[in-house]
Amino acid sequence: MNQPSIAPPSARGPADHEIRDQIIAAAHEHFSQYGFGKTTVSDLAKAIGFSKAYIYKFFDSKQAIGEAICSNCLSTIVDAVDKAINEEGISATERLRRLVKTLVVTGVSLFFNDRKLYDIAAFSASERWPSSRVYDARIKGFVLQIIREGRELGEFERRTPLDETVEAIHLTLRPFVNPLLLQHSLDFVEEGPALTANLILRSLMP
Amino acid sequence: MNQPSIAPPSARGPADHEIRDQIIAAAHEHFSQYGFGKTTVSDLAKAIGFSKAYIYKFFDSKQAIGEAICSNCLSTIVDAVDKAINEEGISATERLRRLVKTLVVTGVSLFFNDRKLYDIAAFSASERWPSSRVYDARIKGFVLQIIREGRELGEFERRTPLDETVEAIHLTLRPFVNPLLLQHSLDFVEEGPALTANLILRSLMP
Repeated sequence: MNQPSIAPPSARGPADHEIRDQIIAAAHEHFSQYGFGKTTVSDLAKAIGFSKAYIYKFFDSKQAIGEAICSNCLSTIVDAVDKAINEEGISATERLRRLVKTLVVTGVSLFFNDRKLYDIAAFSASERWPSSRVYDARIKGFVLQIIREGRELGEFERRTPLDETVEAIHLTLRPFVNPLLLQHSLDFVEEGPALTANLILRSLMP
Repeated sequence: MNQPSIAPPSARGPADHEIRDQIIAAAHEHFSQYGFGKTTVSDLAKAIGFSKAYIYKFFDSKQAIGEAICSNCLSTIVDAVDKAINEEGISATERLRRLVKTLVVTGVSLFFNDRKLYDIAAFSASERWPSSRVYDARIKGFVLQIIREGRELGEFERRTPLDETVEAIHLTLRPFVNPLLLQHSLDFVEEGPALTANLILRSLMP
């Protein structure tokens, strides 16, 4: 087999995105142990064995590193939801149930098995970092997709303006979507999701 | 007109409940200025001109004073809701809308015009003080009352078990009821309550 004539990145040393990923992984581990708030970029540089200047080549600030970590974690939730709801041959009703359930299960296991990571995510949500806004928009996108499909298939009512339905459901899901609310909703993660999903589904009846 | 022969409490010095109220009012003012967390009962006693021992005659602990303050404030919300929803001649639908709206308007104005008071309420909610559990139970009681009436009048559906409906609505209202969630819901207090009330009402359609 012929090898491509252009050398792969590794032959020229690691590509920028690989170094970025390396810094993110090391920073994640470091923050997990020492917390995000109290650590400076200097501490981080020392701990992971890069110079501070080198880290600043890839990230503008500590927040930018936190953003990248957050973004990865929120992507994990988005991917899990995406996979759960986009299975073929299930009803829009079932997709909505899975949306709610997966959000809670993934969110709780991700954030609350790693309190320090949770701190970053909560910080992100409270400061409205782009990562948390992107996450919010993705979840709302899933809601829109499910409602639209359910309306087309006659599973869901069509009297209410689509935007209003989507907005209201997204709002109802906030205690399970937003890490700041989720931390105060842990008493409800067993029974809450099904109760909420059922209430939403009753509101969607044609 | 004959005066009653039993002397009123004031003739024998202030009654216990009056002294309690006095301590609560003074403590409320003191906490409003200096915060609840950092103040000790000694600080409080010095500031309001009672001895520490005298305060302990009426309250077991600083928490008990905080509880009383909290309880008063949560009562203000409960009273406002009670008044708003129990007007005669309005539908259960209208009562439910008023419940949601009054909760938000009173809660926001009470807690957020007095940040320090909010700290006590948030503390109460996070520690599950009796005052916050009583408050939760009262709000759930209002929901039950409205749903029951709406079902009797044929305004609301009756297929779903009453308990489940009430529990699910109460859960949906948490971002507006629980001070810990409310603080992260301020972006939504303009449009959120109506959207949420409408979603709940759609879920109740017969």
